[in-house]
Amino acid sequence: MIQTPSPALDPTADVAHLTARLIDLESVSGGERGIADAIEQVLRPLTHLEVVRDGDCVMARTNLGRAERVILAGHIDTVPLPTAGGSRGTVPSTWDGDVLYGRGATDMKGGVAVQLALAATLTEPTRDITFVFYDHEEVEASLSGLGRVAVSFPDWLVADFAVLLEPTDGTVEGGCNGTARFDVRVAGRASHSARAWMGVNAIHGAAEILVRLRDHEPATVHVDGLDYRESLNAVKITGGTAGNVIPDSAVIEVNYRFAPDKSPEQAEEYVRALLEGFEVERTDAAAGARPGLQHPAAAAFVAAVGAEPKPKYGWTDVARFSALGVPAVNFGPGDALLAHTDDEHVHADAVRACLRALTIWLS
Amino acid sequence: MIQTPSPALDPTADVAHLTARLIDLESVSGGERGIADAIEQVLRPLTHLEVVRDGDCVMARTNLGRAERVILAGHIDTVPLPTAGGSRGTVPSTWDGDVLYGRGATDMKGGVAVQLALAATLTEPTRDITFVFYDHEEVEASLSGLGRVAVSFPDWLVADFAVLLEPTDGTVEGGCNGTARFDVRVAGRASHSARAWMGVNAIHGAAEILVRLRDHEPATVHVDGLDYRESLNAVKITGGTAGNVIPDSAVIEVNYRFAPDKSPEQAEEYVRALLEGFEVERTDAAAGARPGLQHPAAAAFVAAVGAEPKPKYGWTDVARFSALGVPAVNFGPGDALLAHTDDEHVHADAVRACLRALTIWLS
Repeated sequence: MIQTPSPALDPTADVAHLTARLIDLESVSGGERGIADAIEQVLRPLTHLEVVRDGDCVMARTNLGRAERVILAGHIDTVPLPTAGGSRGTVPSTWDGDVLYGRGATDMKGGVAVQLALAATLTEPTRDITFVFYDHEEVEASLSGLGRVAVSFPDWLVADFAVLLEPTDGTVEGGCNGTARFDVRVAGRASHSARAWMGVNAIHGAAEILVRLRDHEPATVHVDGLDYRESLNAVKITGGTAGNVIPDSAVIEVNYRFAPDKSPEQAEEYVRALLEGFEVERTDAAAGARPGLQHPAAAAFVAAVGAEPKPKYGWTDVARFSALGVPAVNFGPGDALLAHTDDEHVHADAVRACLRALTIWLS
Repeated sequence: MIQTPSPALDPTADVAHLTARLIDLESVSGGERGIADAIEQVLRPLTHLEVVRDGDCVMARTNLGRAERVILAGHIDTVPLPTAGGSRGTVPSTWDGDVLYGRGATDMKGGVAVQLALAATLTEPTRDITFVFYDHEEVEASLSGLGRVAVSFPDWLVADFAVLLEPTDGTVEGGCNGTARFDVRVAGRASHSARAWMGVNAIHGAAEILVRLRDHEPATVHVDGLDYRESLNAVKITGGTAGNVIPDSAVIEVNYRFAPDKSPEQAEEYVRALLEGFEVERTDAAAGARPGLQHPAAAAFVAAVGAEPKPKYGWTDVARFSALGVPAVNFGPGDALLAHTDDEHVHADAVRACLRALTIWLS
């Protein structure tokens, strides 16, 4: 296979334009080679940085012996390109005035551009910095580049605090809710639907489950100063085999987004109690992360950024840092609600403001 | 394509053994050519019968100028062979003592064998008889051979009374329930499941539908002396798109088996009233058939058979005869509950008893 040489990136250019260049390097999960090469090409010549590469994860760090070390991390992959014709959230990027459109504009080439600009320009930061540019975030957790380097280069993920540059619209979002999925099964007995009384209807048996989920009032839980709003929902349902057969099985997939005061085990207990009397199987779980804003490095960060921190509802890799013992927050340019949409975009000033805030904190 | 010549059938052999020979002629819907050829081969030489063939439907009738004409009808196709290894309800047939196993043993090669035996032996029946051996009963109604000849040979389906030799375990089953299917749809609004409050959960919205169906008490309706037990059920449910998305749609398929005192339109009205407030679309309907047992020919038949008539719950082609103005009942060997099962079988004596009863009635 012939590799097209990656066009060189200029990390000292305007960071919004650097974002556009990064979007132009299409990098759907599994296809990160080119963008990882381009990032490595920027970092290798920088004498104030130690650089390693593992697969398509590129890491760089200062070794200045500062009292504190912080990690700035971001994933370099994106979800697939939009399939709808006329979508602007695609590749290559396009400008509409000061608004930059393209796949990854919010999630999260803007954040990656900020990381790259900081790596190139902050030669004497007041805190030692480890930069992590990682692959395979938008796919199943087992493929995560961050998970891989946590095993292969554990010392590179030791730090006092981590900032994940996921889109938060310029506010600090602390911690994250956990997530767990369950299959709730109802068994029946099949019969011909013309003689329904010979069978037991599993779909009718599922009525009670849906009623309990519908009537459930999700809690809002105060953790370390932030309010985490939970969600508990049926996300899928299937049942029945044919139009003339009483269904002998129904399965409801339930997703519980639980506050970071609970472990996945406690979340499971909660769901089992709510759905008592039914067969509940946990199929997937990821712990949340407490915001950790009481940590001095985090407090200094929040003070430097100057905006009121908010809770993060969706699961992000801050939970991975949290599990490694590193308090972490999300802070990055762009609106998370635009992530993965056909209309993905970011305002140039949002990327510039993020760079400014982090530069102030680290200088 | 090379046609294997059909082995000749002997209609004067023991009718249970004739059933076995008919089972051995595999005839899954669409593959009835061979069995239709074999039946035609038996009927053509019989000088007391007028014979016509239309596709794989074979019909024969006496023209003795009797006061009454009756139709004896049965389908020659079967559902597909069992896929489970070791199934006995397959092809070729096997005997276990006096019990005959094989696909079609109950549905309805036994009934077809009785028709064939009567056609060959009753040269001077007391009522004129029209025999109908038809194709494509086990598939969608539009393919039905009986429906086809009702159009192409309408005078062949004119009669005072019809007996459909579907399995009824030797009792007379009169009329049949109608059947109608509905899609009941609930719309929601998608959102990320970590921010469920931004969406509207369509599956939760379906809870009320399932509760109404679960709590509904199906009626038993007295029609022309028989009690028709109704069934109203969710037979399928689907909803949701992904494990992290609040579902924006749920669809419940509902099957209503309604007594023959109602038209499909009245059945629809009933379901719409029960599910008021929800979007209900009728996707399919077939009228039932009143038992018609007050008709003299039917009454004479019931008297000759000597068993208490029962209602038929499942939809059968008696409804097609009913729509043509011919009162019809089901009466045949074998247990309808074994139809389509991997263990399909019939007792030799059940086939013989059916032949005996019809011979007495028609002699």
